[in-house]
Amino acid sequence: MSETPPPDFVLGQNNYGKSEVRLFKVKRDTAFHEVWDLNVRVVLEGDFDAAHYHGDNSKLLATDTMRNTVYALAKDRLTGSIERFGLALVDHFLEVGPTVTACRVEITQYRWRRIEVDGQPHAHSFVRERGERRANVWGDETGARGVEAGIDDVYVLKTTDSGWEGFQRDRFTTLPDTDDRVLATIVTAKWEYNVIDADFDRLWDGVMERTLETFTDHYSPSVQNTLYRMGKAVLEEFLEIQRIWYSFPNVHHIVYDLGRFDIENENEILHATHDPYGQIEGWVERRP
Amino acid sequence: MSETPPPDFVLGQNNYGKSEVRLFKVKRDTAFHEVWDLNVRVVLEGDFDAAHYHGDNSKLLATDTMRNTVYALAKDRLTGSIERFGLALVDHFLEVGPTVTACRVEITQYRWRRIEVDGQPHAHSFVRERGERRANVWGDETGARGVEAGIDDVYVLKTTDSGWEGFQRDRFTTLPDTDDRVLATIVTAKWEYNVIDADFDRLWDGVMERTLETFTDHYSPSVQNTLYRMGKAVLEEFLEIQRIWYSFPNVHHIVYDLGRFDIENENEILHATHDPYGQIEGWVERRP
Amino acid sequence: MSETPPPDFVLGQNNYGKSEVRLFKVKRDTAFHEVWDLNVRVVLEGDFDAAHYHGDNSKLLATDTMRNTVYALAKDRLTGSIERFGLALVDHFLEVGPTVTACRVEITQYRWRRIEVDGQPHAHSFVRERGERRANVWGDETGARGVEAGIDDVYVLKTTDSGWEGFQRDRFTTLPDTDDRVLATIVTAKWEYNVIDADFDRLWDGVMERTLETFTDHYSPSVQNTLYRMGKAVLEEFLEIQRIWYSFPNVHHIVYDLGRFDIENENEILHATHDPYGQIEGWVERRP
Amino acid sequence: MSETPPPDFVLGQNNYGKSEVRLFKVKRDTAFHEVWDLNVRVVLEGDFDAAHYHGDNSKLLATDTMRNTVYALAKDRLTGSIERFGLALVDHFLEVGPTVTACRVEITQYRWRRIEVDGQPHAHSFVRERGERRANVWGDETGARGVEAGIDDVYVLKTTDSGWEGFQRDRFTTLPDTDDRVLATIVTAKWEYNVIDADFDRLWDGVMERTLETFTDHYSPSVQNTLYRMGKAVLEEFLEIQRIWYSFPNVHHIVYDLGRFDIENENEILHATHDPYGQIEGWVERRP
Repeated sequence: MSETPPPDFVLGQNNYGKSEVRLFKVKRDTAFHEVWDLNVRVVLEGDFDAAHYHGDNSKLLATDTMRNTVYALAKDRLTGSIERFGLALVDHFLEVGPTVTACRVEITQYRWRRIEVDGQPHAHSFVRERGERRANVWGDETGARGVEAGIDDVYVLKTTDSGWEGFQRDRFTTLPDTDDRVLATIVTAKWEYNVIDADFDRLWDGVMERTLETFTDHYSPSVQNTLYRMGKAVLEEFLEIQRIWYSFPNVHHIVYDLGRFDIENENEILHATHDPYGQIEGWVERRP
Repeated sequence: MSETPPPDFVLGQNNYGKSEVRLFKVKRDTAFHEVWDLNVRVVLEGDFDAAHYHGDNSKLLATDTMRNTVYALAKDRLTGSIERFGLALVDHFLEVGPTVTACRVEITQYRWRRIEVDGQPHAHSFVRERGERRANVWGDETGARGVEAGIDDVYVLKTTDSGWEGFQRDRFTTLPDTDDRVLATIVTAKWEYNVIDADFDRLWDGVMERTLETFTDHYSPSVQNTLYRMGKAVLEEFLEIQRIWYSFPNVHHIVYDLGRFDIENENEILHATHDPYGQIEGWVERRP
Repeated sequence: MSETPPPDFVLGQNNYGKSEVRLFKVKRDTAFHEVWDLNVRVVLEGDFDAAHYHGDNSKLLATDTMRNTVYALAKDRLTGSIERFGLALVDHFLEVGPTVTACRVEITQYRWRRIEVDGQPHAHSFVRERGERRANVWGDETGARGVEAGIDDVYVLKTTDSGWEGFQRDRFTTLPDTDDRVLATIVTAKWEYNVIDADFDRLWDGVMERTLETFTDHYSPSVQNTLYRMGKAVLEEFLEIQRIWYSFPNVHHIVYDLGRFDIENENEILHATHDPYGQIEGWVERRP
Repeated sequence: MSETPPPDFVLGQNNYGKSEVRLFKVKRDTAFHEVWDLNVRVVLEGDFDAAHYHGDNSKLLATDTMRNTVYALAKDRLTGSIERFGLALVDHFLEVGPTVTACRVEITQYRWRRIEVDGQPHAHSFVRERGERRANVWGDETGARGVEAGIDDVYVLKTTDSGWEGFQRDRFTTLPDTDDRVLATIVTAKWEYNVIDADFDRLWDGVMERTLETFTDHYSPSVQNTLYRMGKAVLEEFLEIQRIWYSFPNVHHIVYDLGRFDIENENEILHATHDPYGQIEGWVERRP
């Protein structure tokens, strides 16, 4: 890269790219418009030593160019799932960057539902839904590619059929056992595909559906057990998924002490606290 | 209030209370649970001179007591609309505070939809929806009461049937006319009832429906015109509503210049910017 | 405005404008650069009936033009305090808008401190400080002008010399008295000037200093009493200020119950809760 | 762990713990109080199979117990740096959790500066500063320990002595070269110590100082080059640091086009955009 010998302090793993590229696309070839509302991040890895050591930018693509590229390629390549668009971007950046060895594209898709008028979905008017769809596509110069998908910000709650009992107690334990509590969490999930082409839209909807249904279908003795059941349900149904990870903040709903005022409170009046929360995370995987 | 003469610098309008009381209630008398998920703010006005001037707290209700009270009264008084619960709280605080002359209770209700399993709504499992319901109830010691309701955080977008033309031009105007643009906004609305008892749940749903349908049903020459049409539609249908206010940020979606790359772009590839936004606000009222 | 008779539902108070105009200016006529980092909002009121009722935009200035104007006027008119820049913008918009009757300009200034190198402030390198400066300037077509200034997001805390005792108790009161607690709040203040020209920079610094010093200089029996003392200190020193308003969330720091583990805790180990907070607000004014 | 054979879908890497434990400690043995304001996260790894597969909680420590423990241990063990407190927590949780094999404690310290009164720092009154201190301490049952420290949310800006030239150009490049631009970024840094005991407070201050001074002391041809220079400056001075990572969003300040209005603008009037930003990240390490 450079004739001068490398310095005593060397560059380790590094990357750069463009974040928060807010791409909006409308498919308007019929009166029934479709929309993609995306937040794209592009990350490049490669041999960027000259820039770091010597201020030589000649092998760096400007991040402004990356932004232009995302919009330009959207015209022809964003026609279906965000996973496929991510793969197209990865291919492009591996090709143009002379010293780029790997590329990652992270996409968040905001979800819009058609407004219903007289029970009919409208042709070009939409309302934003909660819950985000994620894709994380990766590739390198050897031709390797990986596709990961995800869910974020889906807030679920059940008012019964959940408990927390029989846990380990030590000197600092004060929490009593309960076999009936409110369970609430904000679902973050990500999963790895063992293929790089599939009906990604159908699969994403399927994981969302399996996750929500599993949340409802059993007595939950712990967030851990529910996490495992969800992962198992997903892997059983979708062979294209190799493993899945969930992260669950335990949004505590604490029974408010109304006994002090001689008012009965059988799990009816609760305080939804912002305060410290349990956090449970893990992968569920196909047995190797 | 106090024997010492008032100082040279006097207390003006003032109030105090408790914010962010996160009340969660489950109605569990049948297997089909119902939930209320509320964020309550209590604000008291009155003669609090002694506390401010002399540090005499004897006529102040602790804000901690206000919190306890919200939870305690929820047991029997939160059985229907948040507007009615707000009125019950207002009545209570006007009664207990010896020097309280007016009380305002602001409630945000987070909305939960039942999870569907095999097409059926589940008995006790829910997922949070976007869009907040608001109530703002007010009363004073003379017995006067007022009820205001609101909508917040409903994000809508239309991909066509909207323009911005023929506006005033001056030295600093650079924006071209357009008769086809993407229109996006996040609806905040509030409206005043001319009654203090009504079917507030039905009315709230009705305002939401009128607002969304009006958004879809016309070519919008400006946010201003759409705002007026929405208010008119609401007032025409619901006689209980005296006036309604909307606040609309204009979330700009800017056509990305792909001509630089010889790529055609007919309103198809856009940039959803976080940058400066227009903001349009106004009341629509019954003619006096 | 229009030949057609007004409709049954009339436009009430309304306004429109541009928000989040992020203006950054560098004064670079010497090597010792100065910066202004502003967030500007422009709000116009006037006769906008034709736009609302009939979709006639011919008397509306585009909000995009307002943005251009803020940047263009910054060149010559932003040379000192944000209050003066606000007044210049108000004058401009009252003049150009044919149907504009009143204008409000709200400015937030983010504060940058010079980086110190070897104990010397650097000529052109800065680090952002916490705490925002606000100005809110208003004018109308009769020539009336008003200037309000403000402080936001200044987080203060004292570890002793604060209590909460002798307050009113009722059925729902459980909080014990204390004469030693941690007091923490995030200062929001605004004040009205009784002049429209003054050394606004010096005055702003003075209000900040009076507010912080008063926070330290007494035993606080309540947030209310401290609020009044601060307002009094400001009005005593600065004759240009007519009245001042503070809003204080009471960020509760709760002594953690370590007695359960046989550990003493004399106000030493506390929990800084995000949960419901008291909120105390009021004006302190010159006696009329 | 369990007699039943493992299922087809197995648990992969997993962990659980408590987040957002908001610990506040006051050292009040002299009139000159000291404070620690911390946000603590505890994360445990280990053999939690029984809980996930069978709903058997008997080997799980409740996250509520973790919270109690953080407060209880703060009494005697939080007397100096957050790194040492983190190590004490790691030791504790590795000991009490029967099936815990590794523990990570992440601490954010919010920084408070004494309020100055008449030029003197006050004994017990403080104001919050921008910029967070981080520690990330890790250990496992073999006795291995690791200490990482960090900086977050330090927003810096220079108004000149920065450019971006001579970069690679392709079909989608439109950005012109510049040798004078405003450079702004929000510093996130983390670094690994090659020791587990040191004067962590002094070292943290030193890294902050080296980082800020390096920001000022050269013409920056790219964020990459400035990143490398900062890392080198830190490693040269502090032998206890093995490697350091920076993440720099490039907060773009774009020269506003005033030529359209015949107004000159030599890098003086800029738009601080929220829109897509470059992001540059990398490690600088001692040569192996």
